[in-house]
Amino acid sequence: MTSQQLESQIRQKKSFLCIGLDVDLDKIPKHLLQSEDPIFEFNKAIIDATHHFCVAYKPNTAFYEAYGIQGWHSLKKTIDYLNEFYPEIFTIADAKRGDIGNTSSMYAKAFFEDLGFDSVTVVPYMGKDSVEPFLAFPDKHTILLALTSNEGAFDFQTKKINEIELYKQVLETSKTWKNSENLMYVVGATKAEYFSEIRKIVPDSFLLVPGVGAQGGNLYDVCKYGLNSQIGLLINSSRGIIYASSAMDFAKKAYEKAKELQSEMEKIVG
Amino acid sequence: MTSQQLESQIRQKKSFLCIGLDVDLDKIPKHLLQSEDPIFEFNKAIIDATHHFCVAYKPNTAFYEAYGIQGWHSLKKTIDYLNEFYPEIFTIADAKRGDIGNTSSMYAKAFFEDLGFDSVTVVPYMGKDSVEPFLAFPDKHTILLALTSNEGAFDFQTKKINEIELYKQVLETSKTWKNSENLMYVVGATKAEYFSEIRKIVPDSFLLVPGVGAQGGNLYDVCKYGLNSQIGLLINSSRGIIYASSAMDFAKKAYEKAKELQSEMEKIVG
Repeated sequence: MTSQQLESQIRQKKSFLCIGLDVDLDKIPKHLLQSEDPIFEFNKAIIDATHHFCVAYKPNTAFYEAYGIQGWHSLKKTIDYLNEFYPEIFTIADAKRGDIGNTSSMYAKAFFEDLGFDSVTVVPYMGKDSVEPFLAFPDKHTILLALTSNEGAFDFQTKKINEIELYKQVLETSKTWKNSENLMYVVGATKAEYFSEIRKIVPDSFLLVPGVGAQGGNLYDVCKYGLNSQIGLLINSSRGIIYASSAMDFAKKAYEKAKELQSEMEKIVG
Repeated sequence: MTSQQLESQIRQKKSFLCIGLDVDLDKIPKHLLQSEDPIFEFNKAIIDATHHFCVAYKPNTAFYEAYGIQGWHSLKKTIDYLNEFYPEIFTIADAKRGDIGNTSSMYAKAFFEDLGFDSVTVVPYMGKDSVEPFLAFPDKHTILLALTSNEGAFDFQTKKINEIELYKQVLETSKTWKNSENLMYVVGATKAEYFSEIRKIVPDSFLLVPGVGAQGGNLYDVCKYGLNSQIGLLINSSRGIIYASSAMDFAKKAYEKAKELQSEMEKIVG
């Protein structure tokens, strides 16, 4: 999917919501545990209930790997379901991968070809040759971690290198990499004041913003500093939507929460 | 496994060799492709042929993920085989994971509990709360990326933060984290001169050293600066051993290459 197609979907749905599919068997409704594949059944119900209000789904691979091979089956079924029934939706493998060149190529193959995601999150620590193999895939997107939403972000990311914070150095440097037009960036919502600085470096890129809701970020603050003329934001919410209820009505409650967020976004996009 | 048990295995085998099981179906002997699980058959043959000469095996998860669910089956069979038949061997999931706290817990569960590895490689970019969930597992080890062996290492890792390079900041800071005694570090062999600096910061930790052989690192240089009184090094070789031959004699050639490296190590340990 091209970023133009993503933008067009955003304008049509008046939403830039991404829903995180971080499925924890301890948190999903108990009645689903009897089904053959509770993780997929949960995702399917959430997707069917919320797809009108969001433009992207983001399974975090950790939650699937934790259930071993069965978890990978559920992940594969989820992405296949999305690609078959909702091909207009942008899909993000939140995998935070990255390794030396030939190994990153294997990861890119895994997520873009074998699983069929539109994008994957990648860690910048190992630099250029660990990221460029992902960028080589046309119409696929590499969402590079810049400034994350957790407390540990202050351990290294905001430390200054020659007067410039590491996360800014990551943004600047990544623009010089081959096929950098396929880059998007992860920027945590808990630090809305950073968005204006970030927009000076990457005015045109899409930013994937976790941390709205459960992690404390504020939608309006993020939009105030982060929006660009192509919208350029994907705001992620996971727990606030998918675990809005743990009873039989979980899909209905997820629908309501997603609709609520989309309504707020409609005021901004419209 | 405790690091004392690892040291004792090193002294017994007079080897601190780690063999990287980075299996690429395009590179393994063609006759294996007819078997039901070529990746596992290849690993099994390599392990059976080389286990006397090494103390650790390190599958890189990218190579397994690239083959989808079948790849995860092969990875699971490989680690199960190691744990059943060679329980004295230290196992490393070279996965380079790391995410916000609750998500890192899921990764730790995946690698330490579901798969049953002794250790996993972790990326420091997201800081303390992304690493501590891994450190919480007793007798399991978190091998933190400090200085990697690729060219991209110079993009950020060697950049100075307040006069101290990022990779040194990572080493220093990580020592303050909870259960930091469960930390080991990845330090690339292509930069042997850095080892004396690194040993000033982490004198007692095990260092996992990729990049000897195919990537150009030199065993003697690394040992000169990197050895400590507990040995404290795991030198990894992947392609140089496992692809020593792509013919029927691949296991025999891997045996010879592993033996050769062990002989060099015996001179150093003995």
